[in-house]
Amino acid sequence: MDPGAFVSGPVALRDAALFTDLYEITMAASYVREGMTGAATFSLFVRRLPLGRSFLVAAGLEDVLAFLREFRFSAAALDYLRSLGCFDPPFLAYLRDVRFTGDVRAVPEGTVVFAEEPLLEVTAPIAEAQLVETAVLNLCHFQTVVASKAVRSVLAARGRPVVEFGLRRAPGLDAGMKAARCAFLAGATTSSNVLAGLTYGIPPTGTMAHSYVSAFPHEIESFRAFGRRFGSGTILLIDTYDTIAGARRAAEVAAEMAARGERLAGVRLDSGDIPALSKEVRRIFDTAGLRDVKIFVSGGLDEDQIDRLLEQGAPIDAFGVGTRMDVSADAPYLDMAYKLVKYAGRHVLKTSEGKTTWTGEKQVYRFRGPGHRFAYDLVALHDEPVADAAAEPLLRPVMRSGRVLEPPPPLAAVRERCATQVAALPEEVRRLKGAAAYPVRFSDRLGALQRAVEEDVRRNA
Amino acid sequence: MDPGAFVSGPVALRDAALFTDLYEITMAASYVREGMTGAATFSLFVRRLPLGRSFLVAAGLEDVLAFLREFRFSAAALDYLRSLGCFDPPFLAYLRDVRFTGDVRAVPEGTVVFAEEPLLEVTAPIAEAQLVETAVLNLCHFQTVVASKAVRSVLAARGRPVVEFGLRRAPGLDAGMKAARCAFLAGATTSSNVLAGLTYGIPPTGTMAHSYVSAFPHEIESFRAFGRRFGSGTILLIDTYDTIAGARRAAEVAAEMAARGERLAGVRLDSGDIPALSKEVRRIFDTAGLRDVKIFVSGGLDEDQIDRLLEQGAPIDAFGVGTRMDVSADAPYLDMAYKLVKYAGRHVLKTSEGKTTWTGEKQVYRFRGPGHRFAYDLVALHDEPVADAAAEPLLRPVMRSGRVLEPPPPLAAVRERCATQVAALPEEVRRLKGAAAYPVRFSDRLGALQRAVEEDVRRNA
Repeated sequence: MDPGAFVSGPVALRDAALFTDLYEITMAASYVREGMTGAATFSLFVRRLPLGRSFLVAAGLEDVLAFLREFRFSAAALDYLRSLGCFDPPFLAYLRDVRFTGDVRAVPEGTVVFAEEPLLEVTAPIAEAQLVETAVLNLCHFQTVVASKAVRSVLAARGRPVVEFGLRRAPGLDAGMKAARCAFLAGATTSSNVLAGLTYGIPPTGTMAHSYVSAFPHEIESFRAFGRRFGSGTILLIDTYDTIAGARRAAEVAAEMAARGERLAGVRLDSGDIPALSKEVRRIFDTAGLRDVKIFVSGGLDEDQIDRLLEQGAPIDAFGVGTRMDVSADAPYLDMAYKLVKYAGRHVLKTSEGKTTWTGEKQVYRFRGPGHRFAYDLVALHDEPVADAAAEPLLRPVMRSGRVLEPPPPLAAVRERCATQVAALPEEVRRLKGAAAYPVRFSDRLGALQRAVEEDVRRNA
Repeated sequence: MDPGAFVSGPVALRDAALFTDLYEITMAASYVREGMTGAATFSLFVRRLPLGRSFLVAAGLEDVLAFLREFRFSAAALDYLRSLGCFDPPFLAYLRDVRFTGDVRAVPEGTVVFAEEPLLEVTAPIAEAQLVETAVLNLCHFQTVVASKAVRSVLAARGRPVVEFGLRRAPGLDAGMKAARCAFLAGATTSSNVLAGLTYGIPPTGTMAHSYVSAFPHEIESFRAFGRRFGSGTILLIDTYDTIAGARRAAEVAAEMAARGERLAGVRLDSGDIPALSKEVRRIFDTAGLRDVKIFVSGGLDEDQIDRLLEQGAPIDAFGVGTRMDVSADAPYLDMAYKLVKYAGRHVLKTSEGKTTWTGEKQVYRFRGPGHRFAYDLVALHDEPVADAAAEPLLRPVMRSGRVLEPPPPLAAVRERCATQVAALPEEVRRLKGAAAYPVRFSDRLGALQRAVEEDVRRNA
């Protein structure tokens, strides 16, 4: 077995072009045979927002550009395709030489977007644009799912730190890494994921597990041992047996630590009636003069539970959010699509029942209102003059003729952009429950073009 | 940027030991400092089945063993940990040399399992067993999630082929690969994922996309072009504009193909009122004497919709299932945990409210009834004599002293095991809706040990 097979795993760079659906390759084979080399524009967007969601946070662009830049079929990939017996030598020769030579316009990572707004448009010879579809979607989709979910816990926590620690139940290895990145991007303060620390520079943090406590004959011995080793960085998990008894023992250990000039940083609660327990635990520490011992809470949390705990006045200083964030439990996927809108100068669309798409290369203009708040978006044709010069065009050129135009922004800058964007949302759109729909308008020219193409399809397709 | 950064990506083998939560390393640091080198047994199990589910299909073991065998901290990993400033030189020296030297007992991949049954037990020096927790869980969790979801579409399809094609919206790169593997393992016939073809030997299949159809000025030209290129392998997507008009055009092209000795393989419907449309499309082809043109259906399917379509008598020959399978939309995570059950000869457990765990190293015995059907399982202590010699012990030794005992079974064998296991389930447990709970019993000796340890904890912890 390949020694890299565990984690770098089956998806090694050398064969990345095979990270695709077979039909992308069969369609490309037909385009090549038909001599269809014209430019195609594909638009990547989310058709509908999940129930209960009012906005998304775009993510994944950095990986998309890295993929497109390196896109090529390895010798092993070509051998495998040849072995399938359905591709002829001229097409295999085409695949051997093909690179992504197209243009990409995209919204920056960390941008707030809404349904039917393109996150990204690819313009390239149609076979190239088709061959990269699957990977482009995969890379944008999951990261947008997680960033859009994570920002909600950050909002619910009202300024309190949120720690991402879902690695163990993240959906796969890559997801575990991307979840740490996207949670941080969306405002989480740290992650438990150590490799994400090395890879992305996200500060790794952690407490202790129940296994640690139960490995000692008595709970208090585990607390003492951890304190001995980690001093003032210590956070003790106090719910392994009985939370209140655990809190009293933690207070005892905190006093012992104080006697040697150390300070217990905090305790973690992971089960039980958290509002009641957190108040009682707070009282125990305050009574012992340990007002600066923080209470950290975890255990199946997401934005709804964080919100409810704070509504109930639970004296919680920080939250650990894991599985439900990393799988986006309430909305584990988005209705994200990559649709052809123009081929060889001809505008196209599909009119499948319930899935009609907008035609045309687009631009999204964001208009601001009082207090510089977002007021509404206008989806227009990409080359359409827009009256208000103050409207911000969200899609920017990021790749031209296969070349990345500038290095990706640092993750800290993406995180800052996300925070600024979310802060600029109208309060009624940003709220976690019963949020208002943000106004997304479509330009008259786009509307007219859409009707003309629909009519043309009805008559001629 | 590392040229491997797109896909082999951040999770390269050299740093795989850092694919962990920070607390695993801090706890290990404390164990090392305290001289706690005793053997620990951790048990990996699912606490509760998701709502509406009656059984799980275990998957992920092959990757777990590959991870454990290769487990080590690279120089880069050690440098990074040193840079965090919280680990001392003796512990960093420990990490430099540490390997996984423990034993693993596990149920084979493809085994049907239930709540509270260990899928896997790890026995190793406690720091080693702790350091591998996160990766072991990540590798087992997602694959068990997908295999357990995918088998339901296979059951709903009642023998009709199920094609996995969720790669584009699978939660990340690794998930896209694992989803193809686990769907196949659970009985899907093929996958659209070409790299899964190369990696796992799963036959890749595909049809065409709406973009292909709309790239041509007229739908029928797209059908002709695809037929020209792929002959009798052709499946035409007929819902880009109007499904019934598309079916008539497909029948016309099928007749043209027949005239040159080729046979249209099938058509795909991806939207609209599928029961009504599929019947009308079937009638169109049958009337044209094209009875062997297959109808392939896709579009947001899962087991519930497949079941409903077939209940309504829709004449569908094969199903394409994507996103909802790959993210396990109704149950995107399992309440899977890795819990310490024994340390240095002492039985342990936690009694956290609502999360009490069973103590002790275990074995799961499966008893069969009439027709060799599964009758009930008995969870017992691992060394407990069980009266019925015919009861199958599910956990088998797979690693001893860090050495894998035998090569992993071929994927085809795992798939066969899964099919045999599912077929042996009582019908009332296997059914998709309103399934009965399978009887899982706990041995008297396990129960007595549990009560004794709980009592001990109450008195002494």
